[in-house]
Amino acid sequence: MANAIRMLSADAVEAANSGHPGMPMGMADVAAVLFSRIMKYDAAAPDWPDRDRFVLSAGHGSMLLYSVLYLTGSPAMTLDQIRNFRQWGSLTPGHPEYGHTPGVETTTGPLGQGISTAVGMALAERMLNARFGDELVSHFTYVIAGDGCLMEGISQEAISLAGHLGLNRLVVLWDDNRITIDGDTELSTSEDTLARFEAAGWSVASVDGHDPDLVEAAIRNEQLTDKPSLIACRTVIGKGAPNKQGTHHVHGSPLGKDEIAALRQELGWTLPPFEVPAETLATWRAAGAAGADARKAWDARVEAHHKRDAFWRALGDDVDAGIDAAMAARAQFLADKPKLATRQSSQKVLEALIPACPSLLGGSADLTGSNGTLVKRHVPVSRDHYAGDYLHYGVREHGMAACMNGLAAHTGFIPYGGTFLVFSDYMRPAMRLSALMGLGVIYVLTHDSIGLGEDGPTHQPVEHLAALRAIPNLLVLRPADAVETAESWAVALAERSRPSVLVLTRQGLPQLTTRQDDGNLVARGGYVVRDADGNRAVTLIATGSELMLACQAADLLAADGIAAAVVSMPCRDLFQEQDAAYRKAVLGTAPRVVVEAAVVDGWEGIVGDSGAFVGMTGFGASAPAERLFTEFGITVQAIANKAKGLI
Amino acid sequence: MANAIRMLSADAVEAANSGHPGMPMGMADVAAVLFSRIMKYDAAAPDWPDRDRFVLSAGHGSMLLYSVLYLTGSPAMTLDQIRNFRQWGSLTPGHPEYGHTPGVETTTGPLGQGISTAVGMALAERMLNARFGDELVSHFTYVIAGDGCLMEGISQEAISLAGHLGLNRLVVLWDDNRITIDGDTELSTSEDTLARFEAAGWSVASVDGHDPDLVEAAIRNEQLTDKPSLIACRTVIGKGAPNKQGTHHVHGSPLGKDEIAALRQELGWTLPPFEVPAETLATWRAAGAAGADARKAWDARVEAHHKRDAFWRALGDDVDAGIDAAMAARAQFLADKPKLATRQSSQKVLEALIPACPSLLGGSADLTGSNGTLVKRHVPVSRDHYAGDYLHYGVREHGMAACMNGLAAHTGFIPYGGTFLVFSDYMRPAMRLSALMGLGVIYVLTHDSIGLGEDGPTHQPVEHLAALRAIPNLLVLRPADAVETAESWAVALAERSRPSVLVLTRQGLPQLTTRQDDGNLVARGGYVVRDADGNRAVTLIATGSELMLACQAADLLAADGIAAAVVSMPCRDLFQEQDAAYRKAVLGTAPRVVVEAAVVDGWEGIVGDSGAFVGMTGFGASAPAERLFTEFGITVQAIANKAKGLI
Repeated sequence: MANAIRMLSADAVEAANSGHPGMPMGMADVAAVLFSRIMKYDAAAPDWPDRDRFVLSAGHGSMLLYSVLYLTGSPAMTLDQIRNFRQWGSLTPGHPEYGHTPGVETTTGPLGQGISTAVGMALAERMLNARFGDELVSHFTYVIAGDGCLMEGISQEAISLAGHLGLNRLVVLWDDNRITIDGDTELSTSEDTLARFEAAGWSVASVDGHDPDLVEAAIRNEQLTDKPSLIACRTVIGKGAPNKQGTHHVHGSPLGKDEIAALRQELGWTLPPFEVPAETLATWRAAGAAGADARKAWDARVEAHHKRDAFWRALGDDVDAGIDAAMAARAQFLADKPKLATRQSSQKVLEALIPACPSLLGGSADLTGSNGTLVKRHVPVSRDHYAGDYLHYGVREHGMAACMNGLAAHTGFIPYGGTFLVFSDYMRPAMRLSALMGLGVIYVLTHDSIGLGEDGPTHQPVEHLAALRAIPNLLVLRPADAVETAESWAVALAERSRPSVLVLTRQGLPQLTTRQDDGNLVARGGYVVRDADGNRAVTLIATGSELMLACQAADLLAADGIAAAVVSMPCRDLFQEQDAAYRKAVLGTAPRVVVEAAVVDGWEGIVGDSGAFVGMTGFGASAPAERLFTEFGITVQAIANKAKGLI
Repeated sequence: MANAIRMLSADAVEAANSGHPGMPMGMADVAAVLFSRIMKYDAAAPDWPDRDRFVLSAGHGSMLLYSVLYLTGSPAMTLDQIRNFRQWGSLTPGHPEYGHTPGVETTTGPLGQGISTAVGMALAERMLNARFGDELVSHFTYVIAGDGCLMEGISQEAISLAGHLGLNRLVVLWDDNRITIDGDTELSTSEDTLARFEAAGWSVASVDGHDPDLVEAAIRNEQLTDKPSLIACRTVIGKGAPNKQGTHHVHGSPLGKDEIAALRQELGWTLPPFEVPAETLATWRAAGAAGADARKAWDARVEAHHKRDAFWRALGDDVDAGIDAAMAARAQFLADKPKLATRQSSQKVLEALIPACPSLLGGSADLTGSNGTLVKRHVPVSRDHYAGDYLHYGVREHGMAACMNGLAAHTGFIPYGGTFLVFSDYMRPAMRLSALMGLGVIYVLTHDSIGLGEDGPTHQPVEHLAALRAIPNLLVLRPADAVETAESWAVALAERSRPSVLVLTRQGLPQLTTRQDDGNLVARGGYVVRDADGNRAVTLIATGSELMLACQAADLLAADGIAAAVVSMPCRDLFQEQDAAYRKAVLGTAPRVVVEAAVVDGWEGIVGDSGAFVGMTGFGASAPAERLFTEFGITVQAIANKAKGLI
């Protein structure tokens, strides 16, 4: 059975003339044990909610996963797909992609992401289990990870979090082949990996990764511990390729004609490429169907269960009541006109949202009070209380983001997590995967400009808005007041197939928008917040805390008889998705001044050839916020002057 | 002496009404021991090359460092600066800033960066020692780190690397106060930190952080080990503030009037704010001057040393011969017209550069062969061979970048390090610090677009060029052929006060530029690579691998009688620094088509209202490169069609 994985992998890489045969060949025995003796799944139903999850953290070994999907009989994974490995339009891309290939639980390839995402999945399982019981939720999360995954810093954050939370249904199978791309692992590491995991509260074991019975026994043993488990599987990379195995030459290149022939001889494999002996295939297919009865029994249990409806609502990301709650908070803001930092407005919205939307799962990377992510009724999640609904992620931004991806990909939770906007840099690789996977994760990023003041340039984002907006399929929302903050939450909740970023201030802001019945205008990305008195001479466009300055500049211009319209643009992405007529009506034809306390990058198209930008051109500084806005020239007067210069 | 740190810190935070008193007060005893009994330095000469380095990784405790600088008599750190903590123009910003405040060895605040940068400093010391001997180079690197630093994933990468390299001159003092911002550390971590460091090959110890003699003994003991050392200093955060100490309430807010009064009483401190008893100050000043004799003796040793000139050249970042070598490689390329991937051209340039520029220190995050960062004469650095000149950083991009910051900030080396462009996300926080500190680190980022082909969207950067260009003070260079690659290296070498990013292709590119005597045109950022035949009807602007397409599109347009000029713009940052006349001459007044296999963000200003962009609008896909360029519409025909549409 393992040799079928080896040959399919080697042949597919050879046909593509590109790919990574070493890992699938080295971990073939472990994978065969996992999928034929251990895992609970039904290949015919890759979406069964109570299936065991499998994460190929070492995503470059994608052919291991594709081979297993084909061999077990996953409906979409035909032999044609295997033949078309790494080709345009195939279900077999170079690295496994969530949402693209049925049976792929999460997108992997960027090292360390898989194992860290799996922590979120294993946490989702325990938390759903706490909410719905053993009858509905009881499964394991298995991971295959390589040395590269474990060397990435993100894995330490995830390992540490998993140990702290006691995620005993998580089993990581480490491909301990002692080879990295540069050569032997001893070139770059001397770590005692087992001791490192033990220090983080894991159970550890070590086993010959080519002895199926020992691998099975080790996994069964680790299933019984009350800790997450690491099993070091001592393997030979590229096992079976007689001349190349055990070296880094087999990691990321086709074996080549001669070595493939030698492999066939070594394995006693007489069939041509992409053919598997009928008996072997039958054995694999039987394994793939072995979980069908369990799945059907589960279906029946769910159907009869008194929590059935709530369960399906949770898995279905039901957000309607949450959106209503956000819009109710908005109505209250319109009535109260509070002067609040948008991080505070956001917290007030959450006070209303959390009771209405039980799937919403809060958290922060150790900035809970600063981010305003915690509400009164929140109960922290711990190893002794998985029924909670707030996560203290610790100072682990990257681990938090990957964990949120896992929580969302598992289904059952809508995670949001907070840190400072400037530290979005720390979690950017995982945020990119949220976007690539189309997961509706919500990032709450506060302290969003030089407006945070004294902490200085290390904490003041200037390029982060531009950098986040550049990520495809990620909504960046920067509300200007409490009303826009409530609307932004409603948008983020509604967006269940792409991630959102809420960018919030530290400093207080006045309530500027006064509308009542024109719906959620943040959902349109940009809108006229204040029309010109007469024909527009100039349009002032601003986001977040700078909208206040733009409105004051419009007053100043009005005093000089200049009719300025003010446009709020909390989400440039959504604005660009509006139809041309709407965009034209909002932007007008008068010259434009765009105001944002950040770099211009990405705004030039709206500024246009005849417009101007008021913002930052370099790093900030340490001083009270008002002083910084003055020193960096982001002032009412500067906006008015720029406007006058254009007309 | 420790109480002087406590009172200055508490009073400065109180005066600023902002800041972090808890850490300076908790670690005051440790700092007093370090600066009065342990460290080799001369406060009057903060630039003495052989001084011990001190890194405040927990940078929010900046007042600890500023207090010590004032107390020891660092010339720039006057009492006025302390009084102006966190104010505009002061030398005492919220977090310590390298290049801004004499005596600050590296910018800290973003957690985990300090300890990881310190690894680079400790490595620089060992490597310079290997090159120049004990007489010129023999010092320690001390770090104060908090729980936050150790929870960040980057610290694991750095710890692992330090253990692997056996950096025995590195001593980390962990402020083990069991408090984070959210509350007790047990909210978010259960890790056995000492065991974790031991697993990475460190020597560890534990000590009462408020007993100066025990702290001193522990440090002296750790100085003797052959491993990097971690000393857990058990402390009480905010020690001395009787009602708030030991809680997270003392972490990041002023103590308040009442608690400051209580602190004074507790410490028996009768003087008003910012006054230190004369006798205590005298003791501190004596400690600060204690290293003066050692420094003078060192001066004399250097002066008489046979390697004196080479030593000063190394510390002075002498790059002249390197630039000459790069330009000589360029001349060879002009003669040979090679068809090479720019990563290969880069490797060829390095073959010439390395012998000419001994301070250049190569490395890669386990992608050596792919990045082309290694040359034949390179010798790997290891714990047994610090005299090497190539670092196998392992799969640790973030740790690599921070390590390079430390190597550069220490002085003595010009580090360059490679990974894939898409993984710049993993090291972005440290890259930002390279830019903020103005360190001439060189990032070699290959596989720079969908042109990498089959690895698919997880490995295909589309937003990374925009995201990197948005970072202030960071040069992004994307050469189009071998000649531009050589020129880019010359630019990167010449830039000693800002970091450079070399963005290089996986795929082969023809030699397009033919100039001989017009100097380094990459240094001008953009230039006309091919003039229009007659009056320009359109200007095609491209970078990197797309320049080839633009040139072919110009041919296609010429066949239709349309005169197109082609502009190569390898570095938009440098182009924007050119004078207006030059920019105008290059860009012309005809409509423009910008071509880059990436998102448009940041190009809109050059595209202009009447121009067009040919590039990416979303993530890539897994397929051979040619297919991807066709499918995503980045083709010669598409460029020509867009151009025709504009004229």
